[in-house]
Parts: sequence; C-alpha cells; structure tokens
Amino acid sequence: MNNYRQTLVQDTHRLADVTGRLADRDWSIEWRTLQGGVCDGVQVVTLSNGTFAVEVCPTRGMGVLRARHGETTVGWSSPNRDPVHPAFVNLTSRNGLGWLDGFNELLCRCGLAFNGPPGLDEGARSPIESELTLHGRIANIPAHTVEVGFDDSRGDVWIRGVCRESTLFGPHLCLQSELRVPLEKAQFDVIDTVTNHAAAATELELLYHINVGPPFLENGAQFRTAFAEMSPRDDRAAEGVDSCAEYLGPTAGYAEQVYFFDPLPDEHGRARALLQNRAGNLGLSLTFDRERLPCLSQWKCTQAEADGYVTGIEPGTNFPNFKSLERARGRVILLEAGASYRAELSLALHCSAAGVASVADSIESLQQSIEPVLHRRPAPPLAAG
Amino acid sequence: MNNYRQTLVQDTHRLADVTGRLADRDWSIEWRTLQGGVCDGVQVVTLSNGTFAVEVCPTRGMGVLRARHGETTVGWSSPNRDPVHPAFVNLTSRNGLGWLDGFNELLCRCGLAFNGPPGLDEGARSPIESELTLHGRIANIPAHTVEVGFDDSRGDVWIRGVCRESTLFGPHLCLQSELRVPLEKAQFDVIDTVTNHAAAATELELLYHINVGPPFLENGAQFRTAFAEMSPRDDRAAEGVDSCAEYLGPTAGYAEQVYFFDPLPDEHGRARALLQNRAGNLGLSLTFDRERLPCLSQWKCTQAEADGYVTGIEPGTNFPNFKSLERARGRVILLEAGASYRAELSLALHCSAAGVASVADSIESLQQSIEPVLHRRPAPPLAAG
Amino acid sequence: MNNYRQTLVQDTHRLADVTGRLADRDWSIEWRTLQGGVCDGVQVVTLSNGTFAVEVCPTRGMGVLRARHGETTVGWSSPNRDPVHPAFVNLTSRNGLGWLDGFNELLCRCGLAFNGPPGLDEGARSPIESELTLHGRIANIPAHTVEVGFDDSRGDVWIRGVCRESTLFGPHLCLQSELRVPLEKAQFDVIDTVTNHAAAATELELLYHINVGPPFLENGAQFRTAFAEMSPRDDRAAEGVDSCAEYLGPTAGYAEQVYFFDPLPDEHGRARALLQNRAGNLGLSLTFDRERLPCLSQWKCTQAEADGYVTGIEPGTNFPNFKSLERARGRVILLEAGASYRAELSLALHCSAAGVASVADSIESLQQSIEPVLHRRPAPPLAAG
Repeated sequence: MNNYRQTLVQDTHRLADVTGRLADRDWSIEWRTLQGGVCDGVQVVTLSNGTFAVEVCPTRGMGVLRARHGETTVGWSSPNRDPVHPAFVNLTSRNGLGWLDGFNELLCRCGLAFNGPPGLDEGARSPIESELTLHGRIANIPAHTVEVGFDDSRGDVWIRGVCRESTLFGPHLCLQSELRVPLEKAQFDVIDTVTNHAAAATELELLYHINVGPPFLENGAQFRTAFAEMSPRDDRAAEGVDSCAEYLGPTAGYAEQVYFFDPLPDEHGRARALLQNRAGNLGLSLTFDRERLPCLSQWKCTQAEADGYVTGIEPGTNFPNFKSLERARGRVILLEAGASYRAELSLALHCSAAGVASVADSIESLQQSIEPVLHRRPAPPLAAG
Repeated sequence: MNNYRQTLVQDTHRLADVTGRLADRDWSIEWRTLQGGVCDGVQVVTLSNGTFAVEVCPTRGMGVLRARHGETTVGWSSPNRDPVHPAFVNLTSRNGLGWLDGFNELLCRCGLAFNGPPGLDEGARSPIESELTLHGRIANIPAHTVEVGFDDSRGDVWIRGVCRESTLFGPHLCLQSELRVPLEKAQFDVIDTVTNHAAAATELELLYHINVGPPFLENGAQFRTAFAEMSPRDDRAAEGVDSCAEYLGPTAGYAEQVYFFDPLPDEHGRARALLQNRAGNLGLSLTFDRERLPCLSQWKCTQAEADGYVTGIEPGTNFPNFKSLERARGRVILLEAGASYRAELSLALHCSAAGVASVADSIESLQQSIEPVLHRRPAPPLAAG
Repeated sequence: MNNYRQTLVQDTHRLADVTGRLADRDWSIEWRTLQGGVCDGVQVVTLSNGTFAVEVCPTRGMGVLRARHGETTVGWSSPNRDPVHPAFVNLTSRNGLGWLDGFNELLCRCGLAFNGPPGLDEGARSPIESELTLHGRIANIPAHTVEVGFDDSRGDVWIRGVCRESTLFGPHLCLQSELRVPLEKAQFDVIDTVTNHAAAATELELLYHINVGPPFLENGAQFRTAFAEMSPRDDRAAEGVDSCAEYLGPTAGYAEQVYFFDPLPDEHGRARALLQNRAGNLGLSLTFDRERLPCLSQWKCTQAEADGYVTGIEPGTNFPNFKSLERARGRVILLEAGASYRAELSLALHCSAAGVASVADSIESLQQSIEPVLHRRPAPPLAAG
C-alpha cells in the first residue's frame, strides 16, 4: 500500500444549501457546521446576493463573522482564528475576561443584561445579577429557531434567529435577530428586537461591537462621524485626542484608545459613521437609529497585525463603561415587563472614491449644523471623568 | 424561484424509536436529540404507556423534564424554556448560582457531594471539595450507558443510565438511575443507587427537587403531608407559617418560602406528600422511602407565571441548608468505601375527586397518630434557627 | 412483542478507518467519536503497528489516553474513567483545581502559558494572564486540522494536530503535535512544536505529565534516572527521600510525594528515565531531549487503586511549582515573537528482563560519570526550599 493521508477537514457537514437566481443576480444560502478544534459544532450561514456575502453565526449569538465582496474581506484577524464554540468559552475565567477567548467577529453583540468591563455590580438586584463578566453573555448564547429565506418582494435574502438570556430569579431577555442582504447592494441590515419576558422591569445594555481591520484600516485611515459631544474614555485616550479621527498603521505595543461620541442624527433620525482608507477610495459606513442607539464608541486598537490590528465602531444603548457608572448616568435601559426594544443598523461597503466622498460629505454637512463639544480630558457625562 | 424558507427544526435527530402493544395498551419509547440553541445535543427519551408519558433527559443527570397525561402536563414553565445542555451551564458563574441557568425540570436531582446554597465549606477535606455551587453537579452530568426497555413480566417500560460525579483526589460517586412507567397507571417510579467508588468514606447529599406548576398549582391549591415536626426555613418563611399548606395564585414579587418537614412514614416505611388543586379533583402524590429520604422540604415559589410559578416538593437525605449546617446536624450521609445508598420514590397523578380524597384521607389518618411539633419560628434541628 | 432492550453504545460513530500491511506487519488507524456521558463527542484515534497500539485524543489537546501491547495496557485507572470532553471541564471550578475532573491520560500536556498549581500570578502582564488554574489550558483545547497517515519510507503510522491557546490581548501559542508509531517497535515518539504567533515575546511552560499504573507500577517497582541533582518538593516528599526510587503497593491514604531531578544527558543530549516492575522483566522507558526538557519530576501517588494508583514521570521546561517561583528561578521560557520551541520524547516498552536491564545499565553507567547532589530537604534551586 502506498502512503496514506487523511485530514479531518472542517466544514464537512452541510445542513442545507440553497441557491436561486433573480433579476440576473445569483443569490445563495449556505448552511454549514464546522468540525474540529474550538469551532467544532459551530454553525455558519453564508448569505450571498451574488457579489456580496455575509457569514452569520447562529451559534455565537447571531453574530456576523465577516463579509466578503470580491477579493475584499470585511472583518479583522483576531488571535482567535476560527469562530469559537461557546462550550469552549468560560466567561468567568481570566478574572472575568474570558469573553476575549472567543472574540473575533465583524459584528459581536455585547449585552443583554450588561456589557462593559467585569466586576461586582453593587447596584444589582441580587447575587444572581451582580457578577459581571466582560461584555455580557449574549455573544456566547446559541440561537434557536433559526430560519433563512429569500424574499422576492423585497429582493433580499435573510436569516432570523432567537437567543434567550434567561435564568430563574434573574433576567429573561429574548433577542429576536434578523439580518437581511439586499440583492442590489454591498450592504447588510440588522433588525434586532429584545423583549423582556419577565414579570417585572429589567435592565438592558446593548452594544454592537463592529470590528474592522485592513484594507479599510491602515496608516492614515480616517474615522468620521457627526457628533454633538465627544470625550476620551480615559487618560490613555486623552493622549491621542487630537488625532482620534486618524489611524496609525500596525504599531507593536499600542495600547487601546477609546472615544465616546454623542452622535448627531439626520432628519430621519439616523446617525452615521464612516471608516475610510487613506486613499479615500474604500470605505465602510454604519448607519443606525440615533434614538435607539444614542451612544457611539470608537475603539482604536491599532496594535501589531499578529495581535489583532483592528478598530471598533460601536453604537449602543450605552457606553462600555462599568454598568454602575452607566446606571448612574441614566444610560441603562429599564425595560418594562413584556416590553420590547428594537434596534436597527446597516453596514455598507463603498468601493469608489465617489461613493466614499458621498458619505463623508453627508457627515460633514450634518456636522456643520452644530458646534460640537470636544473634551480633551475624560469628562462626564460620557466618560467617568 | 419562489420565496423560500427553511427552519432549523429541533428534534430532527432520532436515535432510536420503538413501539409495542401489550394487553390492549400501546406503549412506546422515543429517543431524540434536540438541535439548536442551548438545547443543542440534549437527549430526551419519552417513555409512554399509551396514556401517560414521561420525558427523561439523560444529558441532564437523568432528570425528568415533564410528564403528560392527556391534555395535562405535569411540570412547570421556567424562564429557561428548553432543556439546557450542561456545556452552556457554568455552575461557578453568578456567584455560584449558575445552576439556575439550566433549571427547568419536573424532577431535578441535587447532589451528590453537596447540595444547598453556594459558598466555602470550611469543613471540607480539601480545596478540591470546598467550593460549593448551588445544588451540586449531578443535574449537569450527562449519563452514559443509557438503556431503555420494555418488561412484559412486570408490565412497564423503563430507562436506566449512569452518571459519574468523579474527580482525582475527590469524590467518586456513581449514580445508577432507573425510571419505570407501569402500563396501567399514571405514575412513574424512580429507583436510584449511589455508590462510593473511592477507597475511603465520602459525604453524600441527595435531594429530589420535584417542581410543579398549573394546573395542580393554583390559588387555593393545597399541600398535604403527615409529619412529626415542621419549621420554616427562615424569617421570610415564618411570615407565612400559618398558611403554609395553602397556595396563592401567581403573585408578582412573591419571595420564595421554604418549610422543612420531618415526615411520618406509614407501616411500610413510606412517607407521602400531596399537591391538590383547589377543587380537589386533580392531584399529584409523591411517595418515598422515609428511612432513606428522611427530610422533606416544601418550596413555595408562587411568583408571576412569567417568572416561573411553581412549588417544589423535595424529599432528600438532608434539608437544602448550607452543607456545613447539615453536617453539624448529622444529616450528611457518610458513605463508606464501596457502599451504596438506595433511594426510591414514586410520582402519581390523581384525576378524580375520589382519587385525590383517597390520598388526602390516608395522609390525614396517618397524621392522627401523632401530635406534630409546629415551629412558628425557624428552629433547630430542622432550620438554622 | 417480546422484551426489548436497547443500549446507547459508545463508539458508534466512526469517522474513518484504514488498515494496511507492510513487511508482514498489519498496521491500522481507527478514528472514532465517543457517545454518551462526559465523553460525548470526544474523538479517539488509535494508531496500531499490528502489535502495539496507541490511543490519541485530539479533543483533549492531542493527549495519549493509553497504549496497548498484547494483554498489557500502558496507562492507569483514574477515577475519571472515560476521556472527558473539555465542555464538561471547568478549569476555574474547585478553587482552580477543576482540571482534575478530566485528568486520566497516559500522556497529558501541562501548559502552555502556565502549569503548576492555581493561584494569582502577581508577575503576570495583566489580569488576562494572572488567574492561573491547575496545569493550564492545553489539555482541554481540542485540536484542529488533525491528520493521520502511514509513511512507508520511515515505516511508521502517524497523527498530527494543531491546538491553539489564544486570546485577544493575551498569549497566542500554537502547538503542532505529531505522534509516530514505528512499525517494528513497542514505542511511540512525540514531536511537538510550540510557536508564539503574537507580536511580542511571551512566556511558555510545557510539561509532559506521563502517568503509569500496574502492571509497571507495583509494590517494589523501581524508578531509575541518572541525574546531577535531586530535591524533594516539600516536607511530605522529604519524608520519603531515602526510598524515592522504590514504590509501595496501593496504600490507602497515601499522600502524594514529588521529587525534582536535574537529569543527566547522554552523549547525544538525551536523558532517560525507567519505570520497572519488581521482577525487572517489564519496564517502560522515557527518552527526552535534555536541553529542551531540562526538568524531570517524579510524582509518586501510590494511593489505593480505586482512587488512582499511579506514578508520573514528568519531563518539562520547568518543575510544576507555582509559576512565579519558576519565573524567579529562570525556568519560564520567554519565547520571542514568531519563535518556536521544539520538544521531543519517546516512550518505549520493555517486555523482557534483558530489555529492562539494558536500559537500567545505560542509566547506571551514565550516573557513574558524576556524583549527584542529593538534597534530603527541599532545596533551591529545584524546590521552593
């Protein structure tokens, strides 16, 4: 017998694939279960409109792993290479920072009962709710009742799933998440509804940790958003407050800098943020409902590529400060029994100088309407101050 | 192509189903693996005698999820809707209360090395055994060597499984669990044997957390048991000591009340507890070996339905106080090397006024034999006092 | 219908089996996925050269469960009977000793960022790295890209797999592990390469916990190694320092004793340790690269068989002291960015008096070259002293 080799390949188990064609566009939905390593058992659903593909991960709280448009990948390279199954993430480990063992998504929800740094929340109702771990539980709760479909009246492919963050004597929050990929755009839309199924009001913190690396992020890349007020998060961020809109290239030893914005809505109530490359011919814009997601955080983490060269654009119901601070500042939602909180956002790719400039111009003209308050030092109410 | 939709349905993977017919009764055994969400990978075996069906969950320590008789479900609605795979339960999280993230069974074992509230057990042999988490590990240990069968000589369907609560330098307790559903009754019988496979004696705490909601539990529902002594667990329970036998309807904000009983055995050594609805035409009775399960706890948790309207009837080797208290009161079993502890109980449904009254009468006549000691305040030896 | 019984058997899911024949030797590779209990989902690959078979567990960090040669099993009987899926091991539980819930291998790696006892490492870079749990994470990280093969030029069967111990803002160590079983020997060879994929230097601790019980270990069994220096780990070990080379039979209540050796290499740089039975006609020898694995620990744990009668022969980059002590003694590897650390060892079976004597003689003659330093009390630099 000759030499023999067999590899336990990933991606071998396909639950259901379907493809279609409409208006000369080939759309497809691919539903895989990964095998091997820490991604064993993780489900990945790829929605494609023929030119733009989005990978959604029901197993990790309906997060978005990455998007692809031709040769361009929207996402980043985390040290955690593959999508990590929640069974291999211990949120309480690493002094409450175990969440970092699984984090590698393009879009990762932080919440639902809490997000921000770990610690003991003295203001919690009970010990069941007081042990906070970094960025909450939702990203490590697998979705059930996952559905995918094609809607020819709207002209999009879609996925829906339900994640339940529940415990006896504690929060019972339910996330119904929908993501749609229109046929004619390099864009995806997220429509989330969080419902409090408990009999009493409960607290909600919801933040979208949207993370992007090259080719959008590079030395000289720019962050743009129109805002009423801005504060650096801490002393480290204050060091770079004058150049917060501009990014460095990969910088070994770079310590993260975070800036908090009170974003300005347009006449439709939509706020917008743009990340563009240095040449200004490639960009990614995020549009979100300013009323429902009133807090925008910019996470600059331009460390070495091997460590995860990335920036985060993070609209949320709150800033990712420790929950007790957010509570004191009135930025923790109190969701009544039976009530729902709806949040929407869209992420769009812009692959031409004209396309990028159009978004940049609209942000610029919106900013003209108001003189923003720019704090050079960490300042309340946005930061701990 | 027309619109397309696909749902990732649960319950799609059947390991083995079998049905049979005996004496004009159709029995069946259905063996499923759930898919999606936090129940992904959970096995559920449904044993039915044709009219009464019991759902056993090998993946959750051979617990009983619920039973069904016609339109009547025996169980409760926990905020944790589906059976939760142990991979998604972190017992050490929530300040040691993470067990609550998975709790939704009709019958859930608490133990084996410990049960009761979390904390540091100063009396433990070593750090390996001293970090106690709520209600122990057994409910989140999956069973192996699971067998099902039909026994035509006894006339029942049955399931057996083995759960091993082991660690190097610590306890090595093995639960062999058997559950039988007789063909002619709306009843199931549990026969458990816990063996100490270690070379030295080890401690054992075993409690059956049996949890029931509507239609058995309702405003005016009654709890009945014959007992020699009773104490409220704490001040909160003392508030309601006079009406402990009667239940409220769903009451928003209701804080749990727990009563400890020293149950009276009948001439066969069997103790009994009854939960009956207000009209007295629907009831559930629990019969257990008084010698092996000498402690009976009543858990009143008549909070709002959305939060889990439920009462627990909990026979055990101990009361669910912190282990060190139970040890001090002599209620922690010291199981010798190689020794086994056997416990048996039966849960029966009563669907007529006559059936309910028959059980109630037997409890009443048993109680006539003794004047019980009724503590109005938390009192040793049952409570911390 | 007659009586019916069905057992949920383990080992029912075979991913790929292959067999071959070369030079009158039948080799085979068997690839199974276990089902049921805490081993549900665990993959086991058995490599056999026809007479000697090795069971490798990709799901548990490429550990070796056991080896078999005819009727002889190389391994031990842990209270944890089956290979435990990492989803059922909580490393932070049991006061950081949760690793003990899964430990039952013949060869179990301890590391990669740390090994030794749990605790707070004050010298760690950040909270992400300071919460140490017993013996680190690698044994509970499943391998991906697992490959098996047969190599007729070398004449062996082999398995390779990759385990990634990564987190954002923390270590990003990657273990590429290879195990080879030569066709003509009762032996297996391990070739490990650990690479630091982070952008900065990171710390590495790697120890091979090789664990053996009967028939190698018995009353009167001997441990032999040539060494330059030896120290008992602690006072308990000091009690038995004069007889550390000889083993007791199973001894109820025996508390473990650990001895640290500075092993002597031969002219090829290889160090060697031998465990032989009392009669001296059955032995197991371990050969390892002295430069890469300069620390050898002997773990005597001759407790009762039911509790795990076992001895460990543990070559490592360090002794399994708390990481801060090893760091202070210069025994924590600082692995530069992009650099790799390679370690090799071989485990061989000796089934005749002549074979055992040959190894024992080579150790003895090597020892003649130097007068070893024998500490009777715990002494630096090996022990805490």
